[in-house]
Amino acid sequence: MSDTSTPSGGRIMLVGLGPGSHAHLTARARAAIAEADTVIGYVTYIRLVADLLDGKEVIKKSMTEELDRAIEAFERARAGRKVALISSGDAGVYGMAGPTFEVLFQAGWTPDSGIDVEIIPGASALNTCAALVGAPLTHDFCAISLSDLLTPWPTIARRLDAVAYADFVVALYNPKSGRRTGQIVEARRLFLRHRRPDTPVAIVKSAYRPKQRIEFTTLEKMTECDIGMLSTVLIGNSNTFIRHGLMVTPRGYSNKYDVDSGTTHAGEQAGRSLSTGLDGWRAGLHASGLGAAELAALHRLPEDYIAALLAEPLASEAADEPAGADA
Amino acid sequence: MSDTSTPSGGRIMLVGLGPGSHAHLTARARAAIAEADTVIGYVTYIRLVADLLDGKEVIKKSMTEELDRAIEAFERARAGRKVALISSGDAGVYGMAGPTFEVLFQAGWTPDSGIDVEIIPGASALNTCAALVGAPLTHDFCAISLSDLLTPWPTIARRLDAVAYADFVVALYNPKSGRRTGQIVEARRLFLRHRRPDTPVAIVKSAYRPKQRIEFTTLEKMTECDIGMLSTVLIGNSNTFIRHGLMVTPRGYSNKYDVDSGTTHAGEQAGRSLSTGLDGWRAGLHASGLGAAELAALHRLPEDYIAALLAEPLASEAADEPAGADA
Repeated sequence: MSDTSTPSGGRIMLVGLGPGSHAHLTARARAAIAEADTVIGYVTYIRLVADLLDGKEVIKKSMTEELDRAIEAFERARAGRKVALISSGDAGVYGMAGPTFEVLFQAGWTPDSGIDVEIIPGASALNTCAALVGAPLTHDFCAISLSDLLTPWPTIARRLDAVAYADFVVALYNPKSGRRTGQIVEARRLFLRHRRPDTPVAIVKSAYRPKQRIEFTTLEKMTECDIGMLSTVLIGNSNTFIRHGLMVTPRGYSNKYDVDSGTTHAGEQAGRSLSTGLDGWRAGLHASGLGAAELAALHRLPEDYIAALLAEPLASEAADEPAGADA
Repeated sequence: MSDTSTPSGGRIMLVGLGPGSHAHLTARARAAIAEADTVIGYVTYIRLVADLLDGKEVIKKSMTEELDRAIEAFERARAGRKVALISSGDAGVYGMAGPTFEVLFQAGWTPDSGIDVEIIPGASALNTCAALVGAPLTHDFCAISLSDLLTPWPTIARRLDAVAYADFVVALYNPKSGRRTGQIVEARRLFLRHRRPDTPVAIVKSAYRPKQRIEFTTLEKMTECDIGMLSTVLIGNSNTFIRHGLMVTPRGYSNKYDVDSGTTHAGEQAGRSLSTGLDGWRAGLHASGLGAAELAALHRLPEDYIAALLAEPLASEAADEPAGADA
């Protein structure tokens, strides 16, 4: 229920610390911690910024006490205090932002009730680990948590299978712990249904911290590697390669350009969709003379989707549009 | 071919600017720009940090000249200069990191050839846009670029369909431009095969910049909204909700806890996998007496995967493990 007697000035700042080293704190993250009267966080994160906490009330919590952290933040803010709730990485990614809003809504808070809530973004583990291994995230990617403490396994398995099939770069969060050792084995099993056993994998532990460790391996061998609570596992897509100790996913320039000369392939144009981009590909469906079932099998897309496209006439030539930036 | 006469000191720093406001630059990003002799980037990003560039060589490029930017960075670094190649967001996410490595490898560069390459991570658009709308990324999420300039449409379509089916939160990058207007329509079509028309969607433009604009809509109506080159589209999963102007994806606490009392549901334990986590769910498969085909249909998982699990005996009771943090 809303509390109309809330002292003014209370606020909650959900701070993403990034990887945790001071060099990778944003100016706003650092300022938010400085502004705070109270700082609440998992003990490991508190330790990362211990030198910034002089004179502040510090509340250290253990790993599974996320809801408690949110509740204490709200209680302090209702008393008029400025509270920094800290997360490693980005507070929105498997972090404190979601649980905090759930607790706040449950307690009757609204954005107008006198307590301001600010989320300060930071680089998540997938970005920081990627930065250390090269450029694995250059194309479509996803994040999946292997923690089944709050999520049924079939939901996780369905996600793993879908992104393995559709050739995403995949970052596995919470890949393994003392109690949870089977999930990474199942992830490998599901990925091997679709992906080559030699698909590059990077395992990064404690990115940008003293005990940082990077290991390159493959989908086949990753379960033999040292993976723990502080690790992020990055699985490449079917084009990802490792060269000179760097893991790189191509953006696709070779689909359009000859790599050596830099000129476009026949039929392709810089700044324009590929000939197999939406318009060209759709025209190709119509021109093929094939039926929806056959095209669906050929392109590995749902038959009803292909049928819908075939049922729609192609747009007439678009009028010349003004030149504009595109990406 | 490696150039053994490279003057020493040349380096390339791939800097992620985050959303672009100075408050959200990391200390390392700011320091890298300060260290640079030459700063190269798309003209919009150069403008974001114009006040940090006094006395430096500044090279502004247009949107599709990514390979040119990488080539010029390499040429300057070979001449001994410190070069900052800037990207908005995170340099590794659809940014300059991948193209830079591709160009460097093509030119014969190796990490030992005297030119150091550092990637400085930043918060990507998905993190910064999420921070402005609430907490949409609390559960598994992905990023898909709707640009078909370098990627065939069937590849993109297959990815859209897969993550809509598997119930990811989805961030669409490059959703629309003057020339590319059909791809967002196709994304909606594919999503509607799996997801409710009232699925919450947030469209964020120019996050943390003067012309910032946030619009909440639904999957059904999103194609009627103003979407452009500076927009990121965030599509919620089947549990995402919008309340009090905030978009929140639950982490799943209600799977384990009674929301009002905070106590665990019968059969669930704090700090342990759900009863429908991997071990419990696998035991349930065996106990069901059902066949692989039926279980596969029930759980929407591949039949061969279910069959493999049924063929393996369940592990005997694990010995008591020492209590340890888990997430």
